[in-house]
Amino acid sequence: MIISTKRGTPAAELEKIIHEFEAKGLSVTMIRGTDYNVFGLVGDTTILDEKQIRANPYVENVQRVSEPYKKANRLFHEADSIIDVAGVKVGGHEKIVVIGGPCSVEGEQPTIDVAKKVKAAGGTMLRGGAYKPRTSPYAFQGLGTEGILDLVKAREATGLPIVSELMSEDRIEEFEQYVDLVQIGARNMQNFQLLKAVGKMKKPVLLKRGLANTIEEWIMSAEYIMAAGNENVIFCERGIRTFEKYTRNTLDLSVIPIIKEKTHLPIIIDPSHATGNWRYVESMSLAAIAAGADGLIIEVHENPECAWSDGAQSLKPDRFAAVIEKGRAIARVIGREM
Amino acid sequence: MIISTKRGTPAAELEKIIHEFEAKGLSVTMIRGTDYNVFGLVGDTTILDEKQIRANPYVENVQRVSEPYKKANRLFHEADSIIDVAGVKVGGHEKIVVIGGPCSVEGEQPTIDVAKKVKAAGGTMLRGGAYKPRTSPYAFQGLGTEGILDLVKAREATGLPIVSELMSEDRIEEFEQYVDLVQIGARNMQNFQLLKAVGKMKKPVLLKRGLANTIEEWIMSAEYIMAAGNENVIFCERGIRTFEKYTRNTLDLSVIPIIKEKTHLPIIIDPSHATGNWRYVESMSLAAIAAGADGLIIEVHENPECAWSDGAQSLKPDRFAAVIEKGRAIARVIGREM
Amino acid sequence: MIISTKRGTPAAELEKIIHEFEAKGLSVTMIRGTDYNVFGLVGDTTILDEKQIRANPYVENVQRVSEPYKKANRLFHEADSIIDVAGVKVGGHEKIVVIGGPCSVEGEQPTIDVAKKVKAAGGTMLRGGAYKPRTSPYAFQGLGTEGILDLVKAREATGLPIVSELMSEDRIEEFEQYVDLVQIGARNMQNFQLLKAVGKMKKPVLLKRGLANTIEEWIMSAEYIMAAGNENVIFCERGIRTFEKYTRNTLDLSVIPIIKEKTHLPIIIDPSHATGNWRYVESMSLAAIAAGADGLIIEVHENPECAWSDGAQSLKPDRFAAVIEKGRAIARVIGREM
Amino acid sequence: MIISTKRGTPAAELEKIIHEFEAKGLSVTMIRGTDYNVFGLVGDTTILDEKQIRANPYVENVQRVSEPYKKANRLFHEADSIIDVAGVKVGGHEKIVVIGGPCSVEGEQPTIDVAKKVKAAGGTMLRGGAYKPRTSPYAFQGLGTEGILDLVKAREATGLPIVSELMSEDRIEEFEQYVDLVQIGARNMQNFQLLKAVGKMKKPVLLKRGLANTIEEWIMSAEYIMAAGNENVIFCERGIRTFEKYTRNTLDLSVIPIIKEKTHLPIIIDPSHATGNWRYVESMSLAAIAAGADGLIIEVHENPECAWSDGAQSLKPDRFAAVIEKGRAIARVIGREM
Repeated sequence: MIISTKRGTPAAELEKIIHEFEAKGLSVTMIRGTDYNVFGLVGDTTILDEKQIRANPYVENVQRVSEPYKKANRLFHEADSIIDVAGVKVGGHEKIVVIGGPCSVEGEQPTIDVAKKVKAAGGTMLRGGAYKPRTSPYAFQGLGTEGILDLVKAREATGLPIVSELMSEDRIEEFEQYVDLVQIGARNMQNFQLLKAVGKMKKPVLLKRGLANTIEEWIMSAEYIMAAGNENVIFCERGIRTFEKYTRNTLDLSVIPIIKEKTHLPIIIDPSHATGNWRYVESMSLAAIAAGADGLIIEVHENPECAWSDGAQSLKPDRFAAVIEKGRAIARVIGREM
Repeated sequence: MIISTKRGTPAAELEKIIHEFEAKGLSVTMIRGTDYNVFGLVGDTTILDEKQIRANPYVENVQRVSEPYKKANRLFHEADSIIDVAGVKVGGHEKIVVIGGPCSVEGEQPTIDVAKKVKAAGGTMLRGGAYKPRTSPYAFQGLGTEGILDLVKAREATGLPIVSELMSEDRIEEFEQYVDLVQIGARNMQNFQLLKAVGKMKKPVLLKRGLANTIEEWIMSAEYIMAAGNENVIFCERGIRTFEKYTRNTLDLSVIPIIKEKTHLPIIIDPSHATGNWRYVESMSLAAIAAGADGLIIEVHENPECAWSDGAQSLKPDRFAAVIEKGRAIARVIGREM
Repeated sequence: MIISTKRGTPAAELEKIIHEFEAKGLSVTMIRGTDYNVFGLVGDTTILDEKQIRANPYVENVQRVSEPYKKANRLFHEADSIIDVAGVKVGGHEKIVVIGGPCSVEGEQPTIDVAKKVKAAGGTMLRGGAYKPRTSPYAFQGLGTEGILDLVKAREATGLPIVSELMSEDRIEEFEQYVDLVQIGARNMQNFQLLKAVGKMKKPVLLKRGLANTIEEWIMSAEYIMAAGNENVIFCERGIRTFEKYTRNTLDLSVIPIIKEKTHLPIIIDPSHATGNWRYVESMSLAAIAAGADGLIIEVHENPECAWSDGAQSLKPDRFAAVIEKGRAIARVIGREM
Repeated sequence: MIISTKRGTPAAELEKIIHEFEAKGLSVTMIRGTDYNVFGLVGDTTILDEKQIRANPYVENVQRVSEPYKKANRLFHEADSIIDVAGVKVGGHEKIVVIGGPCSVEGEQPTIDVAKKVKAAGGTMLRGGAYKPRTSPYAFQGLGTEGILDLVKAREATGLPIVSELMSEDRIEEFEQYVDLVQIGARNMQNFQLLKAVGKMKKPVLLKRGLANTIEEWIMSAEYIMAAGNENVIFCERGIRTFEKYTRNTLDLSVIPIIKEKTHLPIIIDPSHATGNWRYVESMSLAAIAAGADGLIIEVHENPECAWSDGAQSLKPDRFAAVIEKGRAIARVIGREM
C-alpha cells in the first residue's frame, strides 16, 4: 500500500504515522518527493482500512498495490478451478456449458416440455426462475416452491442439472435439497448476509455481476462466499448499467479475459438479460465463446409472446439450437468443445 | 401505454393484438402513421408487462405514459406525508431534521459520548451502524446486537431517536423492538424480500437510493414497502455511481425537487457517503437545505482517524455544529426551520 | 410522435395545442386516458423540437416513435452500403478488413517497417496518428504533416490504404490529398463543424463513437456527414466510459447487430483503445468477428515499450498475425472471409 | 509516480527499468514487497507517459501521486484568481455573477428585450447562442454572425457584457472583436485544437465540463488554454451523463468545493442544461450558491413555448428575478454578495 502525505506535513506527524503502521507489523519505506512525501507499506495490508487512513488530515492519498482478494486470486492458485455441477464440469478446458430455459417457471408440463427442447438442442443445464426479483410489487413474483418442484420434475425427465435464483436465506434448505447450481442475482451481488449464507452451502454458486459493480467488487463478493467455506463459485456477466438505451444493459465481454487473468474461477455469459432483446442474443453468444467464456445462460421459451416474464429476450427452441450449432464451430477454432 | 408496430405488419396481426388488449379490459385507439402504426391503451396498464408485449415480433416499441407507482404517487395523494419517528416529524413544513452519529457503533461509552455531542450541536436523531455492509469479508462487520443495545443506551441518555441499518430479515424483531427508524442501505434497495419484510413492520423506513438505480426504480422500491402495508417511507439520496473518481459517488441533488414533485414522501440527503470526504460535507449539506431537503444524515466522530470505518468522511462534533448553524440560516431563507 | 398532457389541462389549451400541430401539416389523433390525455402526431415530425414542445406547461411528456435519422436509416435503404477505401471494400458480404499500425507515426523508416509487417501479417490498411488528441498539453501532440507524409511513403512501399485522424478543418486539404480514410476521433464525434466539413470531402470517413454517446447520437453524427453530401461513413466502436476501472473503456459489442439493424452502413471495432491493454486485444478481436463486425482496427508496434504513445495497448507484429489467423477461422464459421 | 512490477520479474529487468528512469533524471526508491516490487519516482514526472510504462510486460501497475496540471493547480498559486469580464469580476470574494438570456439568439429586438429584463431582474451578463451545437443536422443551427451582432446591440442597450459559444476556429476573430466571455461548450471540451486557439485569445474563456469528463480531464483542458497563454478561465458545470432519465443530465454540485480546492480558478453553475427542466432550476440555483459557486448561468426567455431551442428549460423573466432575490439571501448567509 502506498500513502502520500500533504506538502508541509510536520516531521512529528510523519513519525507518528510511521510508528502506527510499524506497530501493526508492517514495514515502512519512505520516499521524499518535491510536493509530497510517500510511504510504501510492506506486509499484510488487507487488515488496513483505506478510508480510515484517509481520515488523517495529513494524508493526501492512499493507493493499493495488491488486490484485496486472496482465495479467488490466481496469484495464489495458478491452476483453473473446475466446478462440478451435478456431474457437469465447468471451467478450465472442460466443454463449454449451455444453460437454457425460461425466465420464469410456468408450471410442470411447460417446464418439462422446454427442458426436452433444451436438451435436444444441445443444452447442458436447465434454468428457470421460481423466485423472481421484479422492479414492481404488482408484477408476477414467481411460483415459489411449486416452481422449484416443477424444475425437479424436468430434471427427472431429462437428466439436466437445474439452476435457479435464491433470493433469501429462508429458502436455503429448499435450494440445498433440490437445486444443483444456486444463482445469486445481480441485485443481490452485495447482499452480504446472503453471500455468507450460501458460503455455508454445499451446492455450487452462480454469482451474477451487479448492475453497476466493478470487477473488483464482484471478485470480492466471490471472496465472501469462498471465505465462508464454499469455493465453488462461477461468475456470470449479465450486462452493466450505462447511459445507452437501445439495449437494456451494456454487455461487458472484456470481463472474460480479465476474470481469467485475475482469478482461477470459471465465467459464463448471459446475453439474454444483457441485451434484453432476442435479436441480439445469437451474435453476443458467439462473441462470448470466441472471447473464451466457459459457458452461456440463455432464455428459451416455446412461445415468447406468452412468457410470464421477459418474453422480449427469449429465444424459441429452434433459434437456441442454431446458436449452439454455430457456437460449437467457433469453440473448435479456439481449441474448446461445446 | 403507447405501442408502435413494425412497418408491414399484416392487418390480421394488428387485429389480433388489439383484441388481446381489449380482452384485458383496456380501450384501444389506433393512429396510422407513415412508417409505423401506433396504439394507445387506456385503462389500468399497471397490469401489463412491457417486456412481454415487446416479445411480439410485430411490435417495434412500447412506451409508458403513466408512472408505474400508485401509493407513492403524488397524483393520487396531493398533500405532503409527514412521517413520525418516535415523535420527531419529517417532511412537509416540519423542521428539517439532522441525523448525526458514527458510521459504526464502537461501544457503549463512545456512543453515549457522541450522542451527547450530536444533541448539543442541534442534531435531532442519532445514527450508528451495528450491522455493516462491507465490500471485503475481511473488514469489520459491525458489533451486531451489542451495537444496537449501545444505541439504545445513547437514546436513554439523550432522548434522540435512533437510526440503524437492517441487512437481513432475521434481525427484524430486534429492530422492531429497539430501533426508531429502520434504514435500508443502498446495496439492498432492490432486495425485494427485505422490502416486503419491512413493509410489515410498524417502524418507519429510511430507504437509501441504490448505487445505480433510477429515481423511478427507487420510488418502485418505496412502493414495495407501501404495498406491503407500511406507508412511512423516507427517501435518502447518498450519491450515485458515475465515471468520476475525485468523489466516492456523485451526489444527485436534483432528486430533491423531483421526489417532491412525483411523490408525497419526505427526502433527506447523506453528504458523507456521497462525497466520501469530510471536506465536502459542509458545502453539500448547505446545498441540500437550499434545494429543499427535509433533512440531513451526517457522519460524526470525535476522532475520525480512529474510526472503525469510514473515518475519511466523518465530521468532528464542532464542524457538525457549524454545519447546523449555517444550515439554520439557509433554512430560514427558504421558509423552513431547522 | 406521442405527446401527453397534464391532468386537468383546460379544454381550450388542448384545442390550442392541437391547432398548432395541425398548422404545421401534421395530423393529430387524441386518446383520452384516465390520468392523462395523449396525442399522436402523424406526418414529418423530424421538423419538431421535442424540447420546445415540453416548454408548454400543460405538456407532461413527449416521446418519439420514429427514429430522427433518415439517410443512415435502413428503413429507407434496405441494402448494405459497401464503402470503397482506395479499392478496399468495407461492409456487406465483403472481406472483413484489418487495419493495423502504430498509435502515433514515429518517422518514415519505422512507419515503412511496421507497414510491411502489417501487410505480411494479413492487414489490409495502415493506421497511424499524425495529429494526436492528448489529455495533457505537455504530452506529444504528433508529427503533423511530416507524419502524414511518412504514411504516404509507407503506402507507396506496401500498397496499403492509409487511415489517420483529422482534428481540425484547417487540415482538410491535406487529408483530401493524402489520406484514404479520414478518421473522426471519439472526442470530436459531436464537433458538428468538423462533421459538416468532412461531409463535403470526397474521401470516406471512419466515425468513432464518442466516450459517452448513445448509439442514436452516433447515428445522428453520421447523418450530419451524409446530409452534407458524403454518404461514405464507416462506424467504429472504441469503448464507452463507465464506472469500471480494470479496462480503459467498456467495449460495447452489442452495437454490431444494432448498427446493422438500424442502418445500412458498415461497422468496425477498435479493441486496442477500448481495453487499453494488449493482453485483452486478441479475445475482443475474435469476439468482434464472431458478432459480425466488418473490420478491426488494431494498434501494432514493433517495440511497444518504446512507443511514443499508447504502448500498453499495442500488439507486436507476431501477435497481430496470430489474431488475424484465428480471426479468419472464426470468420469462416459465420460465412465471412477475412 | 509509483510503479509496481510483477511477481517473478528477473533482477536484470528490474535493474534495466531503474536505469531508464534514472537516465531521465528521476530519483528511484525501491520497496520490496511480498507479492510485488514497487518503485517510487521522485522528480518531474509530468514528462512520463503512464501508458508507455505500462507497455513493459514486467510492469503490473502505474499510479500517479502528483496531479498532472501545473498552471491551474492551487498548490503553485494559493490565491484565488479573479477573472475580469469587461469590468465584471468573477471569483474570489467578488459578487456572485448571474448570466441570463435565451438559449438561441432570435433576432435584434427580442434580444434587446430579454436583455433589459435580465438586467432589471439583477442579472450581470447576457448569454445567447449564435452558433448552436445540435444533435440533429435538421435542427436550427443558430443565426451566426447576425446573432452575434444582435447580442452587441443588446449590450449597447443595457451595458451587460455578452457571453456566447464559439464552435470553430474560423470565428475566433469575430469573437475576439465582439464577445466578452467566450464559451467552449461541453461537446468541445476536448477539442484540443480549439482549446489551443482560444488559448491565444485575449478574451476570458468559460469552459463547460464535457458530458462524461472527469474533473481531472476538465482541469487539464483549462491547462491547455492556460499553457497557450490565456490564464483567464472560468469553469462551468452543466451536468454529466449518467443512467438517470428523469433529468437530462445529473448536476454534480460537489465539483464546487473540489475545483476550489484543486485550482485557483472560479466556477459557475448552469442549472438549465443540467436539469433540462425549468421546474428544477430554482432549487438547483439556490443549492449552487449555498455550495459556494461564483456564479450562475440560466436560460431566460419571455415565452419559452415559442423559444427556437431548449424552451423546456428556460425561465420566464419574473421567475428569474425570483431566483436572484432568494439567491441573494442565501449568498449573505455564506458571506458572499450577489
